[in-house]
Amino acid sequence: MGKSINNNGKYHKKLVIGLFGFGVVGEGLYKALQQTSSLNATIKKVCIKHPGKKRNAPEELFTTDKNELLDDEEINVIVEVINESEPAFDIVSTALQNGKHVVSASKKMIAEHLPAILDLQKKTGKSFLCEAAACASIPVIRNLEEYYDNDLLHSLKAIVNGSTNFILTKMFEEDLDFKEALLLAQQLGFAESDPSLDVEGWDAVNKWTILLAHAYGNIVHPNDIVFNGIQNIQLSDAVVAKEKHYDIKLVAQAKKLLNGKVAAFVLPQFVKHDEPLSFVKNEYNGVVIESNFADKQFFYGKGAGSFPTASAVLSDISALRYNYRYEYKKLYHHDVPEISDDVYIKTYISFDDWAFIPKEKFEWIEEWHADAERKYLIGVLPFSELINNTWWKENNTSLILAPEPIIEDVEIRRIKKKSLELAGI
Amino acid sequence: MGKSINNNGKYHKKLVIGLFGFGVVGEGLYKALQQTSSLNATIKKVCIKHPGKKRNAPEELFTTDKNELLDDEEINVIVEVINESEPAFDIVSTALQNGKHVVSASKKMIAEHLPAILDLQKKTGKSFLCEAAACASIPVIRNLEEYYDNDLLHSLKAIVNGSTNFILTKMFEEDLDFKEALLLAQQLGFAESDPSLDVEGWDAVNKWTILLAHAYGNIVHPNDIVFNGIQNIQLSDAVVAKEKHYDIKLVAQAKKLLNGKVAAFVLPQFVKHDEPLSFVKNEYNGVVIESNFADKQFFYGKGAGSFPTASAVLSDISALRYNYRYEYKKLYHHDVPEISDDVYIKTYISFDDWAFIPKEKFEWIEEWHADAERKYLIGVLPFSELINNTWWKENNTSLILAPEPIIEDVEIRRIKKKSLELAGI
Repeated sequence: MGKSINNNGKYHKKLVIGLFGFGVVGEGLYKALQQTSSLNATIKKVCIKHPGKKRNAPEELFTTDKNELLDDEEINVIVEVINESEPAFDIVSTALQNGKHVVSASKKMIAEHLPAILDLQKKTGKSFLCEAAACASIPVIRNLEEYYDNDLLHSLKAIVNGSTNFILTKMFEEDLDFKEALLLAQQLGFAESDPSLDVEGWDAVNKWTILLAHAYGNIVHPNDIVFNGIQNIQLSDAVVAKEKHYDIKLVAQAKKLLNGKVAAFVLPQFVKHDEPLSFVKNEYNGVVIESNFADKQFFYGKGAGSFPTASAVLSDISALRYNYRYEYKKLYHHDVPEISDDVYIKTYISFDDWAFIPKEKFEWIEEWHADAERKYLIGVLPFSELINNTWWKENNTSLILAPEPIIEDVEIRRIKKKSLELAGI
Repeated sequence: MGKSINNNGKYHKKLVIGLFGFGVVGEGLYKALQQTSSLNATIKKVCIKHPGKKRNAPEELFTTDKNELLDDEEINVIVEVINESEPAFDIVSTALQNGKHVVSASKKMIAEHLPAILDLQKKTGKSFLCEAAACASIPVIRNLEEYYDNDLLHSLKAIVNGSTNFILTKMFEEDLDFKEALLLAQQLGFAESDPSLDVEGWDAVNKWTILLAHAYGNIVHPNDIVFNGIQNIQLSDAVVAKEKHYDIKLVAQAKKLLNGKVAAFVLPQFVKHDEPLSFVKNEYNGVVIESNFADKQFFYGKGAGSFPTASAVLSDISALRYNYRYEYKKLYHHDVPEISDDVYIKTYISFDDWAFIPKEKFEWIEEWHADAERKYLIGVLPFSELINNTWWKENNTSLILAPEPIIEDVEIRRIKKKSLELAGI
C-alpha cells in the first residue's frame, strides 16, 4: 500500500477506491474527489448495473462485474452507494472479508444488518464507516462516537428525513394540504416518485436504528421501533398546531429514563417555536443532543442531495487514512440500556369518527374538540398501546405527540395519587 | 504506560493526568472524570496557586509546585486550565518538551503563542489539543480538522462569546440599555467583574485566531485582526435593528474571496431572523460553516460554564487514548490564503455628532437619519479604513455591519460603472 509523509511526520495511506453505484451520490463523490487532490485518494473502478447509460466520466472506469472491484488487491477501500439493500449487504460483507475498508450510505441495509456488520468488523479488523447514512452532511455519528463517548446522553431528538420535513414546511408556510405539498416536493426533487419510504417513516426509522447504536449502544431491528410517517397529517392538524404556536415535525427521539431504560420512537410531534428543531425547515435535517456535561447541542445541515451526501462519504474516506473505525463504545464499554415499553406519552390525536378511538385506553383526556368534519383530543396513553395496536395509524387517524411527550411511570403514579387526594378519596 | 484491551481488539493507553488550575473548569473536569470510569483516566496531581482555599477534593491531590507534575514520569497528560497567559505558555511548552501530551483551554495564551505551539508539536511529536478554547462544548475545532479537511470552506460565521451574546439578547428582549444588561449578566455569572475582555471583543478575537488556523491555515496574531466588542452599542441601535427585522450579534467571520484571499474580522452585525445565528440567544454560542460540498452547517451549544467547558476537555483527553493530534491540514497541506485588506464593507454607523464621521471615506451612503440625540447612516467603506483608523470605535460611535457586509473589489467596480452609465457619463 502506497504511503506519503505529511508535515507532521505521519504516514498516510494512499487510498485506492472501488465505487459501487454512480447515481446522484456516486457521481457527486466522483466530482468531489476530483476537486480534493489533497486527499491522496483515487477511484480505480466503478461498478454499475446498467452499462448503456451516458455518464460524465471516462468509459474505461466502469464495469458491471462486481468481482473486478472486490478481487482487486490494489483496491483498499470499497465505497457502496447503491439503492438495493440485499446486493449492498453482499458487497459490504465480501469487501470486509477480502480485507478492504468499507464506506456505505445504504441506511436500510445497515439498519437491517447491523449485527452482522458488527461481527464482520470485529472478525476482519477492517473499518466500516457510514456517516452519510444518517443525516448526510451532518457529522452526527462521528460526534456521537468521539465527542460524546464519555458523556451521559440524556436525550437525542432529530429530524432525519428531508422529504417529510419539506412537505410539512410547505403545509405550514403555504397552507398546502398533504397531497399538494408532496407533489411540490416531487417536482423539486425532494421526494421520490414512489414516496412511501420517506412519507411513511421507513427511511427515518432506518436512520434512527443506526443512530441508536452509536448513541446508547442499542442494536435494534427497525421493525422493533415504534414509528409512523406523516401520511395521515391533515391541514386541520396544521391549523390546530398554529393556534397553539407549534410546528409539526417528524421527530426521531430517544431519552434515558429514570429507570435506566431508553424510550425510543419516530413519530410526528408538536414542536415549540423556540426549540432548535423548529428552526429546521424545508429539506434540512437537525439533531439536538442533551447530555450531562455538554448540556444542549444542536447540529443542523443538509440531510440529502448529491454533494452534501458525498461530503460525508468523503469525510469517511479521509478518516480511513489514519485507520479510523467506530468503536461502538456505548455497546462494548458500557451497559446497554433496554428499550422501554413502560412509559406513557402525551399526544394529540385527530380522527374522523369517535368509533375509531378506544377512549378507555387513555389514562386521561385533557382536551377534546369536535366538529362535523374532524375531531381531536389531547390525552395520555400507555406507550405499550402504540406497540401492541395499530388503530392510531389507521382509518385516517393522525397521532401527533405533545411537545414534551414522555411521562415516566413514577410521574403517572404521582399525578394519579394527587387527583385522588383532590377528589377526597 | 499502562494499556487495556477493548472489545474491538485495540489497545488503549491509561491516561495519568496532571491538572493545572482548579477553578470553575478544573473542578468541573474533576467531577466529570469521577463520573466517567470508562475513560481509564485519573488525575494524579493538581497544581494550584493558592493552597489555603477550601476545595471539594482530597487535600493530598494538591500541590503548589509545578515541577511535581511536569517532572513526574508517570503523568503522560498535562491539562492546563489556568487564567494567566504567560504561566500557561510556560507550563504547556515545558510539558511538551518533557514528552507529555497537553490539553489546554487558555484561548489568550494559544492565540498569542500559536506559532511556538505548532513548532513544539512538530518537534516533540506530542499532541496539543484545545477544543475547550474555542466554543467550549461545541466540537468546532475537531470538525474543522476532521470533517471539513478536504472540503473548500466558503465561509465561517460564529458567535463565540457567551457574555456579549447574553447582554445583546437582554438589550433586545427586555429593552435594557447596555449598562443594565451588563449588570444583569454579572449578577447571573455570565460576565466577569472586570468584563472588558469579553465586552470589548478581546475574548472573541482570541478564539477567532484559533479557529482561523483550523479553518484556513492562517496563523495570525490577534492584534492583526480587525475587531470590536459591543461596548458602544446603544439602545437606539437596537430600536433601528428591530424596525428592520434584524438582531444584533457580535459575529466573528471569515470568508474566502474571489481573489483567493480571506476576509476575517470580529464585529457587531445585523443578523436576519431566518439566519441560524439569530437562533443563538443568551449565553449560547453558534457556528455556521458554508462549504463547497456539505453546504450550510450550523453547530450550536453552550460556549462557557463549568461542565460544558469540561466536556470539551474530557473529549480531548479521550482522543489522546488513540494518540489523536491536530494535523493543521489547511496549513501544511494546502496553500494558505492571505488575509485580505482590499474588500469593502457595508455598514450601519450611529454617532453623536457628524464631526466624528469622515464622510469622504465612504464609497457611497445609502441611508441616513438624524435626530437631536443620535444620528446614523448606512454606507460602504473600504475595509482598509477599519485597519488604518480608529474613529469608528471612538467618541461613542457604534459600527454594526449590514447582514451581508462583504463587497468584493470587482463588485464595487461593477456598481460604480453602472451608476456612471445611468448618469450618462
